[in-house]
Amino acid sequence: MQVLKERILKEGKNLGGGILKVDSFINHQVDPQFMMEVGRELARRFAHLEITKVLTAEISGIAPALTTALALGVPLVYARKTRPITMVDGAYREVAPSHTKGKMVELMVSVEFLKPGDKVLIVDDFLATGQTIDALARIVKMSGATLVGIGTVIEKTFEGGRERLQYLNVPIESLVKITDMADGRIVFGE
Amino acid sequence: MQVLKERILKEGKNLGGGILKVDSFINHQVDPQFMMEVGRELARRFAHLEITKVLTAEISGIAPALTTALALGVPLVYARKTRPITMVDGAYREVAPSHTKGKMVELMVSVEFLKPGDKVLIVDDFLATGQTIDALARIVKMSGATLVGIGTVIEKTFEGGRERLQYLNVPIESLVKITDMADGRIVFGE
Repeated sequence: MQVLKERILKEGKNLGGGILKVDSFINHQVDPQFMMEVGRELARRFAHLEITKVLTAEISGIAPALTTALALGVPLVYARKTRPITMVDGAYREVAPSHTKGKMVELMVSVEFLKPGDKVLIVDDFLATGQTIDALARIVKMSGATLVGIGTVIEKTFEGGRERLQYLNVPIESLVKITDMADGRIVFGE
Repeated sequence: MQVLKERILKEGKNLGGGILKVDSFINHQVDPQFMMEVGRELARRFAHLEITKVLTAEISGIAPALTTALALGVPLVYARKTRPITMVDGAYREVAPSHTKGKMVELMVSVEFLKPGDKVLIVDDFLATGQTIDALARIVKMSGATLVGIGTVIEKTFEGGRERLQYLNVPIESLVKITDMADGRIVFGE
């Protein structure tokens, strides 16, 4: 996605340690028009899979997952990390290590919103180690629904997420791949 | 907004204690098409105010604020409650009591994303006690930007938020007002 590469080169900052700052348009400030383009492109890549739900994890997955779900014409479900008082009917729960918090976080999805028969696309802003997405995939499996694909905005190929998720045997699409962030570089792959 | 009233009556649950469960279409599962209608309607009500940014608080404010920002053609900024590792340039910080967590939560907005000259619309899913919105309004003031309006999806008039925010002297719009939730009722006002 050329427009995304240009935006990363223009506004993104390599903070070192594999950390890419894109909070001016993706995950603190959000450019809604751009996010619509992201959603349309992710939807296009999975349009043939008869998806019934898009699943993401709060917080920064919500914007791209919402626009993808809109383009696909299906509901979005975002896994909660803190149990809201309105979650009363039981929930599927998994844990994943948080990149930013340095501890395990819980992911919860109400049993009402994932059912056997659902065909689920997982969407997130980043594919890095893949551990959050892996936890979401386990939640999908728990519910009896079927995972049919994984779509992310930015993949950092050097963190091994794609390899970790390979066992799920579903297509994994990312709109840009960053292959190298050593020494302040931002190198895109194919 | 008639379609919202109907949806609340059909899918909403009064859990008692003023808690309205609308997590099948607003704040856990999200109906993207419906959320687009919400955004268009909020944008319509503030279209004359030359808004330059929409501000909300993570988490459940993100979906309606994104669609409102899209309809207005301006960026969305969502205040973070946990400092991300990409927040490196200083932030405006305020605290507000969390309804669901029973403790104070911090709200942070990077200094980069609110500037003097910005005309800010605050959007959130609920107007209840108004304390989160009040904290966001203090952040707007800190930044030197101008708050020009407050828009919410559902207002619970019996929790006093509108009165709390009256001192800000800006228009406050909510798409539905619920005036009474006693004894399992959901009563709409004008």
